Amino acid sequence: MSEDKNPLVIFTPSGKRGNFPVGTPILTAARQLGVDLDSVCGGRGICSKCQITPSYGEFSKHGLTVAPDALSQWNSVEERYKSKRGMIDGRRLGCQATVQGNIVVDVPPESQVHKQVVRKRAEARDIIVNPSTKLFYVEVEQPDMHEPSGDLERLVAALRKDWDLPELEADFSIFAGLQSALRKGDWKVTCAVHLGDDYVSPRIVQVWSGYYDGSVYGMAVDLGSTTIAAHLCDLQTGEVVASNGIMNPQIRFGEDLMSRVSYSMMNEGGAVEMTRAVREGMNALFTQIAAEAEIDPALILDAVFVCNPVMHHLFLGIDPFELGQAPFALATSDAVSTRAKNLDLKIHPAARIYILPCIAGHVGADAAAVALSESPNTSDDLVLVVDVGTNAEILLGNKTRVLACSSPTGPAFEGAQISSGQRAAPGAIERVEIDPVTKEPRFRVIGSDVWSDQDGFDREILSSGITGICGSGIIEMVAEMRIAGIVDQAGLIGSPEQTGTDRCFQDGRTYSYRVFDGTADGGPLITVTNRDIREIQMAKAALYSGARLLMDKFEVDQVDRIVLAGAFGAHISPKHAMVLGMIPDCEIAKVTSAGNAAGTGARIALLNTDARRDIETVVRDIHKIETAIEPRFQEHFVNASAIPNSVEPFPILDSIVTLPNVNFNTGGGDNGGRRRRRRG
Amino acid sequence: MSEDKNPLVIFTPSGKRGNFPVGTPILTAARQLGVDLDSVCGGRGICSKCQITPSYGEFSKHGLTVAPDALSQWNSVEERYKSKRGMIDGRRLGCQATVQGNIVVDVPPESQVHKQVVRKRAEARDIIVNPSTKLFYVEVEQPDMHEPSGDLERLVAALRKDWDLPELEADFSIFAGLQSALRKGDWKVTCAVHLGDDYVSPRIVQVWSGYYDGSVYGMAVDLGSTTIAAHLCDLQTGEVVASNGIMNPQIRFGEDLMSRVSYSMMNEGGAVEMTRAVREGMNALFTQIAAEAEIDPALILDAVFVCNPVMHHLFLGIDPFELGQAPFALATSDAVSTRAKNLDLKIHPAARIYILPCIAGHVGADAAAVALSESPNTSDDLVLVVDVGTNAEILLGNKTRVLACSSPTGPAFEGAQISSGQRAAPGAIERVEIDPVTKEPRFRVIGSDVWSDQDGFDREILSSGITGICGSGIIEMVAEMRIAGIVDQAGLIGSPEQTGTDRCFQDGRTYSYRVFDGTADGGPLITVTNRDIREIQMAKAALYSGARLLMDKFEVDQVDRIVLAGAFGAHISPKHAMVLGMIPDCEIAKVTSAGNAAGTGARIALLNTDARRDIETVVRDIHKIETAIEPRFQEHFVNASAIPNSVEPFPILDSIVTLPNVNFNTGGGDNGGRRRRRRG
Repeated sequence: MSEDKNPLVIFTPSGKRGNFPVGTPILTAARQLGVDLDSVCGGRGICSKCQITPSYGEFSKHGLTVAPDALSQWNSVEERYKSKRGMIDGRRLGCQATVQGNIVVDVPPESQVHKQVVRKRAEARDIIVNPSTKLFYVEVEQPDMHEPSGDLERLVAALRKDWDLPELEADFSIFAGLQSALRKGDWKVTCAVHLGDDYVSPRIVQVWSGYYDGSVYGMAVDLGSTTIAAHLCDLQTGEVVASNGIMNPQIRFGEDLMSRVSYSMMNEGGAVEMTRAVREGMNALFTQIAAEAEIDPALILDAVFVCNPVMHHLFLGIDPFELGQAPFALATSDAVSTRAKNLDLKIHPAARIYILPCIAGHVGADAAAVALSESPNTSDDLVLVVDVGTNAEILLGNKTRVLACSSPTGPAFEGAQISSGQRAAPGAIERVEIDPVTKEPRFRVIGSDVWSDQDGFDREILSSGITGICGSGIIEMVAEMRIAGIVDQAGLIGSPEQTGTDRCFQDGRTYSYRVFDGTADGGPLITVTNRDIREIQMAKAALYSGARLLMDKFEVDQVDRIVLAGAFGAHISPKHAMVLGMIPDCEIAKVTSAGNAAGTGARIALLNTDARRDIETVVRDIHKIETAIEPRFQEHFVNASAIPNSVEPFPILDSIVTLPNVNFNTGGGDNGGRRRRRRG
Repeated sequence: MSEDKNPLVIFTPSGKRGNFPVGTPILTAARQLGVDLDSVCGGRGICSKCQITPSYGEFSKHGLTVAPDALSQWNSVEERYKSKRGMIDGRRLGCQATVQGNIVVDVPPESQVHKQVVRKRAEARDIIVNPSTKLFYVEVEQPDMHEPSGDLERLVAALRKDWDLPELEADFSIFAGLQSALRKGDWKVTCAVHLGDDYVSPRIVQVWSGYYDGSVYGMAVDLGSTTIAAHLCDLQTGEVVASNGIMNPQIRFGEDLMSRVSYSMMNEGGAVEMTRAVREGMNALFTQIAAEAEIDPALILDAVFVCNPVMHHLFLGIDPFELGQAPFALATSDAVSTRAKNLDLKIHPAARIYILPCIAGHVGADAAAVALSESPNTSDDLVLVVDVGTNAEILLGNKTRVLACSSPTGPAFEGAQISSGQRAAPGAIERVEIDPVTKEPRFRVIGSDVWSDQDGFDREILSSGITGICGSGIIEMVAEMRIAGIVDQAGLIGSPEQTGTDRCFQDGRTYSYRVFDGTADGGPLITVTNRDIREIQMAKAALYSGARLLMDKFEVDQVDRIVLAGAFGAHISPKHAMVLGMIPDCEIAKVTSAGNAAGTGARIALLNTDARRDIETVVRDIHKIETAIEPRFQEHFVNASAIPNSVEPFPILDSIVTLPNVNFNTGGGDNGGRRRRRRG
C-alpha cells in the first residue's frame, strides 16, 4: 500500500491513526477509527458539529511532516457555512475537508460527542457527556404505492441505514406530527432519539422538519425537604444553561420530614395533597427555568431526580406512612424510570424521568447521588462524606467498601428553631469571631465582606440591616462562644460573673449571650440563648454519632478526609465544626466542601446514562446502617452532646485550639443534650 | 429405580409420562414434565385451578393398572375447598393429591393454561389461549431493617423464586397501592403480570391483597367506519363474557371514509374532533359492556383493535389527510403497541393497546385481522377472502403466497344510497324470490321466518311492519330481478311492456319495480329504481374487479373457494351474489361465510400474543396491490358493471341458473355503470 495514495491520518487528542485513500473525508476517517467526532447531519455539511483543527508542519513525535496542502481546498459548503455562521480560524468541517496527504487532525472538545465537563476538584468524579438522547438528521425515502410502507417505517429505515441505529420504536407522541414534518422538510428531518436503557427500548421522541439547529435539554433536580433546586442542562454539550430553586411547597404541611409523614397520617388525603403540591412546585420551577433559558419546556427530554425517601415517595404519589415507623420499609428501593406524564410534569410528553435508587428507608436517592458525585467507592483513602441538611446523609468508605447511614439532625443547621435564627439571606450573620479576652463579638453578614468592627460596615449593611443568624453563622457562633469560654463543655452559657462580660445576661432560668442590639434603631436584638445551644448540641450530636457509628462498623477511630456536602456544607468553617464536635477530628486541610454534591450527582446521572448503571451497582454494594436499631448510637449521641465530646479525644483539634476548661454548672438544672430528637 | 417407590404418572390428553417418588403432588409432576396444568396460587390449595381427574382400573394401551389408592386420600384442604366451593365428582386438586402408585391423570380443558377455544369452522384458525397477562399468587418476605430493601423488590424476588418469572418491572400505577396491599394481605398478594412482548418488558400491572378470586379481561374491538363492535374476553379462559356494538359516532362527520377525510381537510381541527368522537364512543361502549358483564373497567388489562387505515389514523390521533390522495401514505404501517392512557381509554391505566399492522394505505389492520382469522397463508387450496363493507378488503392466496387489495364498494351493500334501502333491522326485507313467470315477488323481513305469501305473515309483521330493504335483501332483489328477466345484463329495468308486469312502472326517464305498496295503510311504497340498480352495479363491480385483479396477479381464472367475511357477508346468499357477478364463479358449496372475521382476528390476537407475532410476519409477506394504479382495474370494473359480467364466463353459475337473454336498451340513455365511485 503506497503511502502516497493512502496518507496517514493522526487524530489528537486520542492518538488514533490510520491510512486512508486520498479524498477520504476526515469525518469518514474518524468514524472508521472510532474517533469521537460529533455529527448530527451525517456529513452533509449542515450541522458543523464535526469541526476539526488540522495541524501543519513537522511532527517529530509522529515522525511526520504535514504539508500545507494535506487537506483539500475550502469548498463551497465550508465557505457558505463560514460566511453565514462564522467559524474559528484554522477550523475546517470534518465532513468536507478530505485527506490529500499525511495529516494531524485535532478534535476540539466541543466537537467531541463524549465531551468532558471539567470539575474543579480532582477527587470528584468527572462528568463525561453521554446523554440518553441525541439528534440525528436523515433524508427519508418517499412513499411508493407499489411498495406500500408507513412513513414511520421509512424514517426508521433511514435512521438505521445512515446512523447504524437499531430498529427504533416511535414514541406515541410523534404520530400526530410525523407526516407533516416529513413533507414540510421535503423528506429531510432531524430526530431526537432516546437511545434506550434498561427500562425503555430505543425510540424516536421528536421529529423536526429539515435540520434542527437547536439542542435538547435535561433537568437535574435535587428535591430537598426544604428547597428544590434544578439545573437545566444542554444534553449535547453538557453545559448548565440555567439553574434556579424554590422552597418546597410542602413546607406548609410541615417543616421537617417527620411532620409531613404525620400530616399524611392525620389527614385523609394528606399524602395526595402533598404529592400535588410538590409536583405543582416542580412545574412552576421548570417553567421559570425554561423561561430564563428562553427555551420551550417541550425541549426537555430527560430529567433526573434525587431526594430523600420521604420526598421520593411523595413525589411518586406513594403515602410515606411506612417510612414513619420501623422497619422503615420503602415501597421501592431500586431506581425508578418512568414517563414525565406519570408525574404530571409539563415537559416533553415522552421525557423520561429517572430517580436514583434509595439506599435504605432513611438513606435516599440523594445519598446515592452524593455517592455518585464523590465516589467514596473509588477513593484510596478513607473518606467521610457528610451531606448536611435537615436529615444528614453520611457515607464512609474507600475502595474496599462503603457504609451509609442517615441521622436526623433537624432544622437547626438551617437556622430554624434557633431564637435569632434565619435562613441564609442578606442581613444574616454568617461569620463570627469572639475575642477570648473581651468576649466581644465581631461578625459579617451575608451580602458584605466587611466585618462589623471595620470602617464602612454600617454603610455596607444599610439596605439589608442585621436581621439574624444563619446556619453556618450559628455554628461559628457556638464554636466561638466555646473557644471564648462563654459556653462550657456541657453547653451551658455562663453568667456575667462566670464569663466576665455583661453580654451574658439572665434569660429565664438560664443565660443568654447578646450578639447585637439594634433595638435603639428599631432593629432586632440578636442573642444566643441556652436553648439555641441545646438545639445545636442535638443537631451536631446526631450528625457526629452517625459518623462515629460508621467508623465503629469500619473499625477505625480516624478518617483520612472529610467532605462536607450540601448547599449548607459549603459554608461551614471546618475548624468551627470540629470545635463543636460536629465532625470527627481530622486535619483541617483535609476537610473540604463539595457544594451541592447531591445536585451534582443528579447532573452526572442526567448527562451520562452509564453513570446510572454505575450508581445502581454501587448502591447495591453499599452497606446500610440503621441508626435507630444500633445500641451504640445512643451512647455516641450522649457523648457527642458535649462540646466537642465528653469522651472522645480530638488531638488534631487540640493542636490548633485550646478550649478553656470551664464549667458553669452550679448544680441542678438541665445540663446535657440527652433529649433525642425525632427523625426529621 | 424401583417402580414401587417411583410410580409412573401418565397425563392425558398430552400423553406425557414420568416416574415420581411416592408423595409427589400431581401439580409438581405436571410441572416437571411440562404438562399444561394451570395454577395461580402456586400449589397452596387456594385457587383450585389445578383440578385434575384421576382414572382408575386397567389401561391396556399403557400396560398399566391403576389401583384405587393410587392417589393420596382426600386431605383437609381439598375437603374444605369442596365443601365451600363445590367440585365436580371425580376431580381432585392437583396440588394436594400426591402420587402413591401408578396413575393416569386427565387434565380437563378448564385446567389447562393454554386452553383452546373451539371454532366451528374447520378451515379457520383455532384460538389457543396464551394471553398477555396472567395471575400469580405469592407470599412476600417482610421488610428487615438489617437488610433494607423495597417492598417492590421483595415482591419481584418472590415472583421470580416461586414462578420462575424474569426480573419484573413495576407499572407506575401499582406504586401508590403496593404497600397497603402487601400489609392488608399479610404479605400474601395476587399479581397480574403482563408477560412482556416486543414492545414492553414483563411487568406487574396490578396487585391484590391475598388471593384474588376474579379474572382479568381483554377487549377485542372491530372499529369499523359504520359500527364499532367489541368483545369482552376473560383473559384466563378465553371466553367471550360480553359483546356489544355501537354506531361509530364519526358518522356525523361523513358516512363513508372519504367524506371523513374531506371533513378533516375542510375543517380546521376536524381530525381532532373526529379522534375525540371515536375515543368517546369507544369509552361509552366499554363502559356499557363492562356494566353488562358486571366487572370494573379497571380489570380490562389488554385491548386489541382492528380497523381500516382511516379509522386507524383517526383513532391514533393522526390526520388522515395523506390517505385521501396518492400515494396513500400511512403514517405508520407496523403494528402499534401503546398504553390505554395515550388513547384516552378509561380502562386499567397500565392496559396495553395493540393495533394490528396495516397492509397498505387502503388495506388496513382489519384486513390483517381477517388474514389472521381465515389464514389464507396456510390454505392448501386457493381461497378468496372478501370482507364486504363500505370498503371491501380482498385477500387471495394459499400456502405459496397471499395477495391483498381493497376496493371502494361504497355504502350500497349496507342499504345506504338505495331508495328503499335501510340498515338491517326488524321490518327490513332480507330475502326475496321473484316468480320468473308472473314476475311477482315474495319476501321475508328481518324478525320473521314466514314468507310474505304464506299464512300468518301479516300477523308476524304486526309490530315491525315492512319498512325497507336491507343490504343482503337488495342483493337478492337485484339478482332475482335479473333471473326473472326484469333487469337486463346492462342493468336496465324493463318497461311494463318489455317485462309483462305492471310492477314495472315509468319513474322519470327510467323504470322502477314495485316490491310492496303499503301506502293504503299509511305504510311505505317499496320500490327498486334503476338508480338503485346502478348503485348495486357500482358496488359489486368494485368488489369483483378487486378480486379479479388479484386473480390476474396470481395468474388464475378460478378460485377453489370463497369466504365472505364481515357481519354483512354472513347474510349474503352465495347464489345471488354470483348471479350479480359480485364474486367470481365458484362452486356454491365452496362459498362460505366467516361472520365477522375481522372481529375474530382481533379476538385471536387478544387471547394469543404469539398470534400477534404471526400476523406481523404474515402481513410483511402479503403482496399488496393498489387498485388505483392498476390499469386493468378500470377494464375489470367496466366489464363487471354488467350483470353478472359482460365478458367473463360463469360456467358453474350457468349450470345452476339460466339468465334470460333480455336487452331493454332501446337506444340512448345511460346504460352502463361507468361512473367510477370515489374511494370510501
